[in-house]
Amino acid sequence: MKSELGSSVRVALLGCGTVGGGVLRLLRDNGSVLFPRIGAPIEVTHVLVQNLDKPRVPECKREWLTTDPDVIFNDEKVDVVLEVMGGEQPAWSYIERALEGGKAAVTANKLLIAKHGPALVARAIAKGTDLAFEASVGGGIPIIRTLREALSSDSVSSVHAILNGTSNYILTRMRDAGLSFSVALKEAQDLGYAEADPTLDVDGHDAAQKLIVMAMLAFAAQVDTTKMVVEGIRSLDEADFAFAERFGFTLKHLGIGHDRGEKVELRVHPALVRKNSVLANVDGVLNGMFVMGRALGPCLLVGRGAGDMPTAVSVVADLVDVARARIEGQPGLMTRGIQLKQRGLLPQDDVVTRYYLRFDVGDHPGVIGTIASALGAEGVSIEQMVQEGRADGEGGAVPVCIITHVSKEGAVRRAIAAIEKQPFLRGRPRLLRIEEV
Amino acid sequence: MKSELGSSVRVALLGCGTVGGGVLRLLRDNGSVLFPRIGAPIEVTHVLVQNLDKPRVPECKREWLTTDPDVIFNDEKVDVVLEVMGGEQPAWSYIERALEGGKAAVTANKLLIAKHGPALVARAIAKGTDLAFEASVGGGIPIIRTLREALSSDSVSSVHAILNGTSNYILTRMRDAGLSFSVALKEAQDLGYAEADPTLDVDGHDAAQKLIVMAMLAFAAQVDTTKMVVEGIRSLDEADFAFAERFGFTLKHLGIGHDRGEKVELRVHPALVRKNSVLANVDGVLNGMFVMGRALGPCLLVGRGAGDMPTAVSVVADLVDVARARIEGQPGLMTRGIQLKQRGLLPQDDVVTRYYLRFDVGDHPGVIGTIASALGAEGVSIEQMVQEGRADGEGGAVPVCIITHVSKEGAVRRAIAAIEKQPFLRGRPRLLRIEEV
Repeated sequence: MKSELGSSVRVALLGCGTVGGGVLRLLRDNGSVLFPRIGAPIEVTHVLVQNLDKPRVPECKREWLTTDPDVIFNDEKVDVVLEVMGGEQPAWSYIERALEGGKAAVTANKLLIAKHGPALVARAIAKGTDLAFEASVGGGIPIIRTLREALSSDSVSSVHAILNGTSNYILTRMRDAGLSFSVALKEAQDLGYAEADPTLDVDGHDAAQKLIVMAMLAFAAQVDTTKMVVEGIRSLDEADFAFAERFGFTLKHLGIGHDRGEKVELRVHPALVRKNSVLANVDGVLNGMFVMGRALGPCLLVGRGAGDMPTAVSVVADLVDVARARIEGQPGLMTRGIQLKQRGLLPQDDVVTRYYLRFDVGDHPGVIGTIASALGAEGVSIEQMVQEGRADGEGGAVPVCIITHVSKEGAVRRAIAAIEKQPFLRGRPRLLRIEEV
Repeated sequence: MKSELGSSVRVALLGCGTVGGGVLRLLRDNGSVLFPRIGAPIEVTHVLVQNLDKPRVPECKREWLTTDPDVIFNDEKVDVVLEVMGGEQPAWSYIERALEGGKAAVTANKLLIAKHGPALVARAIAKGTDLAFEASVGGGIPIIRTLREALSSDSVSSVHAILNGTSNYILTRMRDAGLSFSVALKEAQDLGYAEADPTLDVDGHDAAQKLIVMAMLAFAAQVDTTKMVVEGIRSLDEADFAFAERFGFTLKHLGIGHDRGEKVELRVHPALVRKNSVLANVDGVLNGMFVMGRALGPCLLVGRGAGDMPTAVSVVADLVDVARARIEGQPGLMTRGIQLKQRGLLPQDDVVTRYYLRFDVGDHPGVIGTIASALGAEGVSIEQMVQEGRADGEGGAVPVCIITHVSKEGAVRRAIAAIEKQPFLRGRPRLLRIEEV
């Protein structure tokens, strides 16, 4: 499997959209820098596309183009495939075929790694080749590399991450410009930061996929995440931002993971973080990953979580690694270090944190006492409570906002269930978690 | 030079203080994780100390201890030396001897890399071995790795970095608690964050060394830095913090680098950064490096810049890399990618940024006009000017504070020189730079 030193590393690109075009541009512009890091030149041999006649970036040579995947997978001289097409299929089967044939694979596909990462890693290890996926999380931010290599001598106790640029942009605009969710979303769509169908982004699914990929490396964890809490940002409104501001917080959409012994705690939802937190100023379309290492202490990485060139930078950085391993005659060494264990998900009721609760209530005497008693009955103690005579609730409701001390989520939920039966309640109570990060 | 796969990588530790003890602890605790990443076990063979009888961490075995460096450098079986003793000598000659003998070297020594890094890198490349120095900048923050590997396919246009935890702690306390410099310094000393002689930290020299190391990797630059501007934080006072706050800024001590074509711009000084900047909340003893990649865009790394365990994490991460390269029979590949060019330093007069100027003046009519005219005569235009009837200047002086538009530093300095001749001036004018980051 070892190429001759000096012989080139042959690369096939699967897909040639914006990220693929960026990859070709970086390879052309930086060949002289990449060579000494790899020990051999990179040679693009194939670019798999659906349409031969579609216009491509000038760096894409016509003779590389093919619509036939077999040409690539049957060519023993292809060392590495770079999957930048996205989606589950045919990307999944392409990567499987590549690994099966002993080729190394680099992918930017978060969906694929979140769903099939452990099996694909196992396949790569069994075949003695590499699977690299830096670009699947956080675009150009070297979070995967940091977890895999910089922390190779440490263990991670927790991660708190802003993983979706679209949601972060919307929350930033809601906070700074006082926009409603729908107006901020429209603005994000007009700017190209949000899709026409924004579900994947604003409902937390995109962030959830990235958190699952991070958990693989941070906690060496393969977790059944079917019961993972995944909440988006659609229901947040101006009153939440006003209360957050008043209590000294800002609202961020976070993917959160904790190593909890046998179990792993994973959850995705909007949260209140202190305004002086290092995550508080990670605004607009930026992503940020805050990692707590047991020996390292806190480590934050911030950058563009999406975009063709940042993502291409990560794809090429991975290519350098796998190409180098191959040239050295040690394919698979990068991937061999990923050791996954099946671990259970901590039930959400067992999560312990502080809570922001908001009840929109009819303004009757005794309401505050009833709410406080319901919380007290479940052992949830109140740190602050504010009732404001605001008129923007429905049906003349006023919001009562509560910050709890550290509590178990199950107890908080039971108290909320009791309060929900009260006739003074207008609309659904709001539960947001407060994260010290 | 290639070890047999499965044979161990033999490591000698030079020094066994707090960082060395941390390294031994990590190697003991994480051997099972390190093995698959390296492809071989790590075996500590020697620990060079000055005193055999001094108490050591329990992870340090008595039989490893030696006071004789020759035992290590004459032992062909030693693959890697880890230099965690600090200082210029004998660390410098030890690393030279190690590289000369074809051993790989890992160092946490910023002084050594800043002064002799290019020569040591050249020596390592000539000898076909590796020199790694992640721990020399930013403790546990993977900044060197990020510049060398994650950005291997990109080029860096600028860096803005909080590189000294002591200065950052003092500035944070001056801002948040209203302390004077001397009281905040005393507090930092009491907490163990500052040395009895704080010169290296608070006068900017420590940050300057780290910036020079970063510039080697960020700009592939070997620069004569004898004329580099290095300013510390001693002269900042409450009035500066009050004005910064008023204009929407916070004061940070920064190491700044820009790729300016033929030249490199490097400077170390306190600066005003916007309160909503991602660097603004990097407070206390934290360090933060903001890197702008041409393809990547912005990337910020934050973490503990010092401390035994964070630094040990970086030393062991480097050890994993050089050990792996050695086991693979490819020693030197990591270092070979560092390609340094001699580049000139941009003269400070040619630096272009915005400026905060403060003149403590006797409160006479016409003062403002004279100052404004002097700036105007040099083509420096004023964005904001504030005069406050404050009594805390000396001799009844009131501070006049000016924010300029983007200007050349030479022009600003000429204007200040003209203003300094005016009889109304009390004390030295203050020039601080404003950084958009």
